Amino acid sequence: MMNRTLTHELAAHVGETITLQGWLHKKRLLGGINFITLRDRAGVAQTKIENKDELEKLRGLQIGTVLELTGTVVADDRAPGGAELHEVVVNVLVSVTDEPPIEIDKPLDHKSENLDTLFEHRVIGLRNLQETAIFRVQASVKEAARQYFHAHDFTEFNSPKLLPAATEGGAEVFTLDYFGKEATLAQSAQFYKQIMVGVFERAYEINPTYRAEPSATTRHMTEFIHIDAELGFVDFQGLLDVVAGLLKSVTASVWETREKELKSLNAQPVTLADSLPQLTLAEIHDKYFEATGQDARGEKDLRPDEERWVSEYAKQNLGSEAVFVTGWPADEMKFYHKKSDSDPAIAERADLIFRGVEIATISMRENRYEVLVDQLKTIAGGDPEADGFRYYLSAFRYGLPAHGGFGMGLERLTQKIVGLNNVKEASLFPRDINRLTP
Amino acid sequence: MMNRTLTHELAAHVGETITLQGWLHKKRLLGGINFITLRDRAGVAQTKIENKDELEKLRGLQIGTVLELTGTVVADDRAPGGAELHEVVVNVLVSVTDEPPIEIDKPLDHKSENLDTLFEHRVIGLRNLQETAIFRVQASVKEAARQYFHAHDFTEFNSPKLLPAATEGGAEVFTLDYFGKEATLAQSAQFYKQIMVGVFERAYEINPTYRAEPSATTRHMTEFIHIDAELGFVDFQGLLDVVAGLLKSVTASVWETREKELKSLNAQPVTLADSLPQLTLAEIHDKYFEATGQDARGEKDLRPDEERWVSEYAKQNLGSEAVFVTGWPADEMKFYHKKSDSDPAIAERADLIFRGVEIATISMRENRYEVLVDQLKTIAGGDPEADGFRYYLSAFRYGLPAHGGFGMGLERLTQKIVGLNNVKEASLFPRDINRLTP
Repeated sequence: MMNRTLTHELAAHVGETITLQGWLHKKRLLGGINFITLRDRAGVAQTKIENKDELEKLRGLQIGTVLELTGTVVADDRAPGGAELHEVVVNVLVSVTDEPPIEIDKPLDHKSENLDTLFEHRVIGLRNLQETAIFRVQASVKEAARQYFHAHDFTEFNSPKLLPAATEGGAEVFTLDYFGKEATLAQSAQFYKQIMVGVFERAYEINPTYRAEPSATTRHMTEFIHIDAELGFVDFQGLLDVVAGLLKSVTASVWETREKELKSLNAQPVTLADSLPQLTLAEIHDKYFEATGQDARGEKDLRPDEERWVSEYAKQNLGSEAVFVTGWPADEMKFYHKKSDSDPAIAERADLIFRGVEIATISMRENRYEVLVDQLKTIAGGDPEADGFRYYLSAFRYGLPAHGGFGMGLERLTQKIVGLNNVKEASLFPRDINRLTP
Repeated sequence: MMNRTLTHELAAHVGETITLQGWLHKKRLLGGINFITLRDRAGVAQTKIENKDELEKLRGLQIGTVLELTGTVVADDRAPGGAELHEVVVNVLVSVTDEPPIEIDKPLDHKSENLDTLFEHRVIGLRNLQETAIFRVQASVKEAARQYFHAHDFTEFNSPKLLPAATEGGAEVFTLDYFGKEATLAQSAQFYKQIMVGVFERAYEINPTYRAEPSATTRHMTEFIHIDAELGFVDFQGLLDVVAGLLKSVTASVWETREKELKSLNAQPVTLADSLPQLTLAEIHDKYFEATGQDARGEKDLRPDEERWVSEYAKQNLGSEAVFVTGWPADEMKFYHKKSDSDPAIAERADLIFRGVEIATISMRENRYEVLVDQLKTIAGGDPEADGFRYYLSAFRYGLPAHGGFGMGLERLTQKIVGLNNVKEASLFPRDINRLTP
């Protein structure tokens, strides 16, 4: 094969004749000279086509055309990477003659009224450098999360996503025909990550999960990626320390490896306190009432505007853009949650609020077999003998230690690190009640 | 929290009093002394309970009981890790009084007639050290694959698994109700990884895919993990080099990081030629006929026994347990495959056979928009305007370079590295036509 140079290597070849391959990303004609921006996996490079015959090869060709450009590298401080290609000879590899349906060469408009168009043309719009940057950041978030887990002795696993009917009870669930039987798509890795505590003691996966969420909000999708983790021989504070450590490690690592992309997206560096602050639900209701006059006292959840308010409060007063909300009422808890030993009215649960939105739910799990069976029946109305529950329960019958875990939404985390308004902007191909394509 | 020592740290604490936490993994009573093997995430440790009152605490308790054991570390060459715990004080954290339904403390029988029982009791059986070892190896296979991809400039992405009806044509597909519309579960990341060539140029994902495979063979599951990769600006040989590099890198890395686990499973080190051999389908049919008298000449696929035979042939004669099969007839190719420019009767496709089974299908893709649309209609009978195809095709309309890719089954790869008979043994919670649990 021809010896190909990547765009970010240009400056190392000043004075040499080299060949680039990539996509026509931008072109402008100035006095008979064509300036072309070529895009490849490393970024973009400027090239100058001076010869009329070479220019002629590009007549009628649109952005997206695949090109091989051979020329001489010239140092130029104004060019990206400090060098550009001159005296270019053009070889058209794939001609594009239709104008792209969405702009690739300038930042796309992410106003909420434009999002549907953005998603409709996602296949091409992702070639826009800012869009690409979002998903390079997301890839680095995943990688940083894995590194954190591996450094803390977690083993990666894969839970099945095809489950028997009635697993995990009543929330929105997709059903499918499984050779004539009804199956469901996993809403979370909940039961399986708890089972894996019995195997690996510390287990995690980063995988898609599915919710038949009938509303099209800025916070929900039907398919999303969950960072799911679970660990044994831990107490509630130890569990919160793991979650805080993950968030700190990921945000620091992503700003180290993807600073260029984050700056191109106008992302703001993340401020986190050494020890993430903890506020109870009741404290937040009180403070919110004091500050705004809005009364949510007695409510058993945070209102979305309280999530935003407490984030701002924590940032201003506690030096942290992330805060744990504790003190959740036990009478609203899931059947697998654990009540606090010291105060049975409270569940050992926390939500992690980051930049105005809940990005993780964390809890200690009830690990006593008899108590869990009882909670399954009384809280979830579940049948311990049903396929969806009995295998899960067997993990407890044959011994699980005190354990807890959490699920963190990868798209929400990416959204908040980058600074996007809608979680769907942090999904390559978002799925909701109205969208199943592209 | 109490200061906990892990089992593999024992030898570093000889003479000290320390505390272990874990599961009762094995016990035997010898003349009033109880020898207990305790399991934690790091492995197992031997402990000796000499005091009658301490012994009494374990009366009636079964394997799986969660324990905290405090005692003095004594060096002993016969013990795993070179040390054991003596004069143990027992704290029972979780009592297990039922005997486990499957043996945890000795290697499980993987004979084919036992597999259904093995899978039925998977939740507990996975706590068996050999089973755990298989999935620690699998986690390392994934990690090694990612490292290879990152070292070669691939960016990780997530393709959607919820797709519109009729995507990818007619093979076995699960359908589900998507808010009253029909949706399907992705059979592969095929279209999306090709789309991502236009974005990242080199893209990969390691994620579940779904096939409504109605037969329960040793080689098929309905849910499995695919290592999917695609790269642009590549030719067929360059593509094969990437696949060969991945296999070499993964097998070497796994033998480095998981030697202990692989040896405990009696896995055999992998022999691969510096340059993986390539044989055409016709050559294999010929050689197979010569060697066995079985005539598959003219057949357009390899027979399973030919896959096994050619593996053995390559190992004995070509010094490689992996071999590329090329020369696939174009009239059997998928619509997105590319015909060879030099011989249009042949598709630019290869299968990678490793230790007797196909673990990857590799091909160059047709990247010319008009030719692809034509192949879609004539080969797959697809409608270019259908939701399942038109977004995909737009990636070509707006420019995709020469590209190719492959899908490699994670479970098959793990199976063959470890030396398991049935691919389902390399799935934590296998799914097939007969099994949707645990």
